[in-house]
Amino acid sequence: MDKGRVILLGAGPGDLELLTRKAVRALLAADILLLDELVCADIVELAPRARVLRVGKRGGCRSTPQAFIQRLMRRYALQGKTVVRVKGGEALLFGRAGEEIAFLEAAGIEVELVNGISSGLAAATSLGISLTHRDYCHGVSFVTAHTQDGASPDWSALARSRTTLVIYMGMQRIEQIATELLAHMPASTPAAVVQWASTPRETTLVSRLDGLAAQARQAGMGSPAIILVGDAVGLARARATVPFRQSA
Amino acid sequence: MDKGRVILLGAGPGDLELLTRKAVRALLAADILLLDELVCADIVELAPRARVLRVGKRGGCRSTPQAFIQRLMRRYALQGKTVVRVKGGEALLFGRAGEEIAFLEAAGIEVELVNGISSGLAAATSLGISLTHRDYCHGVSFVTAHTQDGASPDWSALARSRTTLVIYMGMQRIEQIATELLAHMPASTPAAVVQWASTPRETTLVSRLDGLAAQARQAGMGSPAIILVGDAVGLARARATVPFRQSA
Repeated sequence: MDKGRVILLGAGPGDLELLTRKAVRALLAADILLLDELVCADIVELAPRARVLRVGKRGGCRSTPQAFIQRLMRRYALQGKTVVRVKGGEALLFGRAGEEIAFLEAAGIEVELVNGISSGLAAATSLGISLTHRDYCHGVSFVTAHTQDGASPDWSALARSRTTLVIYMGMQRIEQIATELLAHMPASTPAAVVQWASTPRETTLVSRLDGLAAQARQAGMGSPAIILVGDAVGLARARATVPFRQSA
Repeated sequence: MDKGRVILLGAGPGDLELLTRKAVRALLAADILLLDELVCADIVELAPRARVLRVGKRGGCRSTPQAFIQRLMRRYALQGKTVVRVKGGEALLFGRAGEEIAFLEAAGIEVELVNGISSGLAAATSLGISLTHRDYCHGVSFVTAHTQDGASPDWSALARSRTTLVIYMGMQRIEQIATELLAHMPASTPAAVVQWASTPRETTLVSRLDGLAAQARQAGMGSPAIILVGDAVGLARARATVPFRQSA
């Protein structure tokens, strides 16, 4: 029997209109769909042939262990199936794709990668800003709020890099992040939170670094959300400066 | 007469299969298409109603000044047209979108943003790596090789940030970039160049920081290309380690 293959697919931040054409084709070809928690459930309609397995790792339900997900992909691929592992956002940012590629290639399984729109970029769209406006910064850094060993990123180095900071999975420790950044950046540094970017539930908050955490808590904002910090964030559209303002 | 609008659209790195569904819809609606140099010319077939204006700012032909492009967008939008400004990669990374949004909104023109796949992410796909593999880094930074005032980014801070570095528009000064980074990183740091990511002309080179510039020159690599530096780059697929190896 022919070996199957695994496609690691970035499904974008929520709005299925942000799927790429390549992603749509991959979904059509899927025999098995492994679905992340944060991916819009309607995506299954784009994969009519597929058996759908939900392997969410966040949210209310019990997490599916990473090792189990990897074995599941291997098993079906070795059965000759086209396995599509659907990840929220971009497959190659913060999605454990590195581990999965290594595991599957070690088993001799072909792995294809399909890019998607990362939620950090969708958040920039919500705010109406370029993340790399050359008048305000030297680029952009995408980081998570904590590193694998439980430590924090090097906020001092990140602040000195003069890149716009786009922080994933940070809402549970937003106070700590703001406090650590305030040791290296002015209190007035523009900062924002975008929750559920690109979806009908999208909410944005634009503030300054010293007020961000309290205002985000007060506004009831939580995961999944992106925290953005840096002078380029100061150009966020006026329409987005009111907490709770829902996009159309 | 009704006011038109301007859509700033990220067309992805080259492969038109990486267009989002939203981008495809915007192209269908376009009356005027302003086309960047690096965008695949075939994209005009997706905009059957549009008058196409080429406003490339790189390559052999004379550059179109940014101010002229902005006035062009304003003029057509004020005539009631749907103007689609097509940018290579992601509209909100290194595309002057910030200036354009400010200019157009000052004229009272509605601006829509449509995300695209950035060439840095397509380069990661070419290499088969996650840019944020948590065993190797704390995240990823996207920077250009030189800042607006002609200076370099703060390579020391970027090196200390332990993010994978994805460097745009760096080929003309790759020697200088490597030299500056070598002051802050081990000579053995994995590094790569990906030219024409996602297109039939794609070429990849995987090396180490101290050999990268010479090997890239020797291989005849030039713009448009992405330079990637960091431990996560060390996982690049074996298939990509041979200079000049062309993807299928």
